[in-house]
Amino acid sequence: MVARSHIVVRYAETDQMGIAHHSNYSIWYEVARTELIKKMGMTYTEIEQQGLIMPLVELYSKYISAAYYEDHLIVQAELKKVTGAKLEIEYVIYRENDETPINVGKTIHALVGRNLKPVNVKKEYPELYQKLISAVEKPLLEDKEK
Amino acid sequence: MVARSHIVVRYAETDQMGIAHHSNYSIWYEVARTELIKKMGMTYTEIEQQGLIMPLVELYSKYISAAYYEDHLIVQAELKKVTGAKLEIEYVIYRENDETPINVGKTIHALVGRNLKPVNVKKEYPELYQKLISAVEKPLLEDKEK
Amino acid sequence: MVARSHIVVRYAETDQMGIAHHSNYSIWYEVARTELIKKMGMTYTEIEQQGLIMPLVELYSKYISAAYYEDHLIVQAELKKVTGAKLEIEYVIYRENDETPINVGKTIHALVGRNLKPVNVKKEYPELYQKLISAVEKPLLEDKEK
Amino acid sequence: MVARSHIVVRYAETDQMGIAHHSNYSIWYEVARTELIKKMGMTYTEIEQQGLIMPLVELYSKYISAAYYEDHLIVQAELKKVTGAKLEIEYVIYRENDETPINVGKTIHALVGRNLKPVNVKKEYPELYQKLISAVEKPLLEDKEK
Repeated sequence: MVARSHIVVRYAETDQMGIAHHSNYSIWYEVARTELIKKMGMTYTEIEQQGLIMPLVELYSKYISAAYYEDHLIVQAELKKVTGAKLEIEYVIYRENDETPINVGKTIHALVGRNLKPVNVKKEYPELYQKLISAVEKPLLEDKEK
Repeated sequence: MVARSHIVVRYAETDQMGIAHHSNYSIWYEVARTELIKKMGMTYTEIEQQGLIMPLVELYSKYISAAYYEDHLIVQAELKKVTGAKLEIEYVIYRENDETPINVGKTIHALVGRNLKPVNVKKEYPELYQKLISAVEKPLLEDKEK
Repeated sequence: MVARSHIVVRYAETDQMGIAHHSNYSIWYEVARTELIKKMGMTYTEIEQQGLIMPLVELYSKYISAAYYEDHLIVQAELKKVTGAKLEIEYVIYRENDETPINVGKTIHALVGRNLKPVNVKKEYPELYQKLISAVEKPLLEDKEK
Repeated sequence: MVARSHIVVRYAETDQMGIAHHSNYSIWYEVARTELIKKMGMTYTEIEQQGLIMPLVELYSKYISAAYYEDHLIVQAELKKVTGAKLEIEYVIYRENDETPINVGKTIHALVGRNLKPVNVKKEYPELYQKLISAVEKPLLEDKEK
């Protein structure tokens, strides 16, 4: 499953190079991740309220070209892999009017309880697990059509 | 009571004007506030663990001159007023080697429980209340000497 | 003239109190300010390219109630006053589905050149000055209709 | 060459999980990078003033365990590789009183002019290039001693 979020680069996100500072990209990934979970039929807020949190354990980001203040960006997030303990999500960022990626990235998330200890999602959150699995299996075609 | 924190302006804190973005100042105030509470003989972490939080309810900030990447700043916080329900803290920011203020500000904080409902600190946290009151009453002289 | 921006609270904007951290509000004001300038028929990027920048010189913010992750907020910015050297803008933030303000604020901006020295906007940027003046004078009625 | 920066986790850096938000780590890397360049005998500010900037082109970060508000962290940066067009720097973050890494990471930086176009540092900035090369070649022993 793929979700796309619309981001307009904020002034506060720029740095003295005159471009969006690199630390914002993982925040934009997070915005798209919030959207991705919504598209699966739940909210990340609801998941946390059930006691499950998804801290980031690995981040990779490749900055291909710069983003500027007031740029309109699309941040695309795609759930690639789910195990009982981890999620892998990939990202592509491009300008609204040009599909050339300006950034690609990947995050891996642990599925843990509020105490940050591992949780077996398959057993303890079967409904959520099913939604995640379905989201990975969904053929790309369906997403492309949208 | 007065506490002083040392801040070095981070690259990520600059914006495309080439100066530290205004949103960072209230974060620097917070760093000095953390220090101020430590100077009273406790940590803000401990206060929160006892169930009391201090959300900001009012912020005023006057930006007199700009701060730049790698500038060494002193952020001074002074507890000015304590009531059973609120705290008032004032700030002055200046460069390490020049006492001319580049920014002055004030924050007002509610004293509330984790549910964000008001708490009578005097009654429910008498020890903490005493520390706060003593910190306000401390003559400036003592701080000046340090 | 009044502009309204739609903000969804980001996870990165929350703090360990579980609410949106206070430092984000002035960034949201800035998003609405960007929109306000667009509504006047120019972009802030264009203004800066002409050599004029508008650093914040005073900030006031009153936090009435908390904002939470995934909250949909409206940030309203209204240009209140323009002189040859300064701008005053006021803000109201409320939830999308409830007009009760959760935050109100005000920013004052200097109108300066890239070197941060004062500029007489009326003389040096007459066209921009006219747009600003018209934006202040616009009767509220017109904005209400939109 | 290795540089170590001391970071105290700020309240604003926490999120509603109660831990330091992942986007801050690359900002802390940047703080240590600033220190690393200083240790080479220059400042990043001076490098930029000469017209050379070092935008991040790749970021990798592995989050091993969480950091909390008021934690005292050491962020260690080590220059690993320099070519005429790129720098590679590696990072380890650990608590002040415990050398177990809580995060490890790597950044790759392009060496470009203010227009973001590639620059041959070896030819155009021979003195800087020499400092960078020496910093890579410095035996670890010397750093260990400090």
